[in-house]
Amino acid sequence: MSAYTALTRDALAIFLDDYAIGTALRWQAIRDGIENSNYFLHTEQGEYVLTLFECLTAEQLPPYLALMQGLASHGLPCPQPVPNRTGLLLGALCGKPALLTPRLPGASQRKPGPNHCRAIGAVLAAVHVNSPQLPAMPANAYGLAWQGHTAELLQPHLDSDSARLLADELAFQRGLDYTKLPGGLIHGDLFRDNALFAEDRLSGVLDWYEAGSDAWLYDVAITANDWCGADAALMHALLAGYAGVRPLTAAELAALPAMLRTAALRFWLSRLLACLTPRSGHLVHSKDPDEFKQLLLLRRESLPLSR
Amino acid sequence: MSAYTALTRDALAIFLDDYAIGTALRWQAIRDGIENSNYFLHTEQGEYVLTLFECLTAEQLPPYLALMQGLASHGLPCPQPVPNRTGLLLGALCGKPALLTPRLPGASQRKPGPNHCRAIGAVLAAVHVNSPQLPAMPANAYGLAWQGHTAELLQPHLDSDSARLLADELAFQRGLDYTKLPGGLIHGDLFRDNALFAEDRLSGVLDWYEAGSDAWLYDVAITANDWCGADAALMHALLAGYAGVRPLTAAELAALPAMLRTAALRFWLSRLLACLTPRSGHLVHSKDPDEFKQLLLLRRESLPLSR
Repeated sequence: MSAYTALTRDALAIFLDDYAIGTALRWQAIRDGIENSNYFLHTEQGEYVLTLFECLTAEQLPPYLALMQGLASHGLPCPQPVPNRTGLLLGALCGKPALLTPRLPGASQRKPGPNHCRAIGAVLAAVHVNSPQLPAMPANAYGLAWQGHTAELLQPHLDSDSARLLADELAFQRGLDYTKLPGGLIHGDLFRDNALFAEDRLSGVLDWYEAGSDAWLYDVAITANDWCGADAALMHALLAGYAGVRPLTAAELAALPAMLRTAALRFWLSRLLACLTPRSGHLVHSKDPDEFKQLLLLRRESLPLSR
Repeated sequence: MSAYTALTRDALAIFLDDYAIGTALRWQAIRDGIENSNYFLHTEQGEYVLTLFECLTAEQLPPYLALMQGLASHGLPCPQPVPNRTGLLLGALCGKPALLTPRLPGASQRKPGPNHCRAIGAVLAAVHVNSPQLPAMPANAYGLAWQGHTAELLQPHLDSDSARLLADELAFQRGLDYTKLPGGLIHGDLFRDNALFAEDRLSGVLDWYEAGSDAWLYDVAITANDWCGADAALMHALLAGYAGVRPLTAAELAALPAMLRTAALRFWLSRLLACLTPRSGHLVHSKDPDEFKQLLLLRRESLPLSR
């Protein structure tokens, strides 16, 4: 959550006049992430996170705000939007839609161990099993059709090695059929920087703005790729944590190796796109596409559960 | 298409180095619209439109670029993206994804007559009948679930008159079932400022970035609400133009009065949201929500085809 927008004291004071959380004592840009500008905000009443939406428009936000409220009300560790004095969940600051949430305790785990992976697997399964009771979200936008369009767009930009890998992987992906797998709400982006741990207890899952409807196994694969990489012990822990809440079906277990490739391909493509169009703004944090190219190569060569 | 981003001569020159369209001779911000920054660009080679995406990210763009290419290749009047020297359709300028398209001739019609409405109906039907051959788009994000989430979010912001209208209209909408209506690709935002006429001939349909999959009748209603308002003669002309290419089914004709309400509600809600979170930037052009509140009231009171 890089800060693109420089926040002034005056603009913040005017914004906070609409909220019953006291005046700002101090604030600080948060450097993680790439889509929104986020700030830790300490007011007379406590600790908050202020999000300025750089990409999402006000028109796009209502389903995500409803989702965050629904998750929090089901006891899932999602920050609940703070209403202003008139009950509104959404404000405006620096010409952008703005949201206040309480600051959850804890910090993200750059080097998770098996316990962290077990906890993230369990919470992901809890989100999935609760999804029939949560607001319905639009279909995940980053499926097979998106992969095809993106691959075609990127093709002139790739070196011959990457172009060959991409063409071969897409041919493999087109032969897959995930339509029979169980699904519902997915987080879609549950990377390590979107989870908080306080004293090794999972205390928050952040950044629900990529959420959508899709096969749950896709969410498992996205999460496992980032948290476990090539480490079979971590992968076992994450899957065990997940299965403790929601056992994978036989069809899901069979599809997992292919789905890990699908998920690696999705983020390789996204990061290649981001490199084409570097964003301006202060504190921007962009990510290396090669990390996911390497992971894709790994997922093509080995079953993740073999030791 | 308001210009939020101030374009400098140096940044533009560096961007155009990657394209084989000559150097820039002059450029001018386009004031219409609210989502992107658009410029008329005159180079040594001709007239172009340069779009800087303020909201859409590079990650979101590939399906829309594929759609624009598909529409143009099917002879539909959509501007076809101009590739750069290496064949890429997407660049970066001022830290934003940037697209070049040829400038289509003509201008938008603020006060359309029956001939304009007939032409827009016909082209909309042509898009719909061609949609099986065009890239599949994700489901339209602004359906009934979005309406419910948005209404809940806005409720504390509304005066009692609007709150009552909204609650009553939502109750009516929840009783509708559009799932049996035929559908596929919809433009989703075919307002007067998104169509060009040159000497009374339709020369371009712009701004495909709200396109999605939904009932085609929804697209007809969105278009008719903006182009025809309360004018029955214009409504007849638009529907006749549409039916000349694709006759409406009996179920569609029966659903039209309700769908016109659905479409009016959708834009009333969007504009109320936009007023909550005014955008900063130069030349920003925001739109009046009351226009759609009045249209909704009108659609609730009269069948649009009665004279």
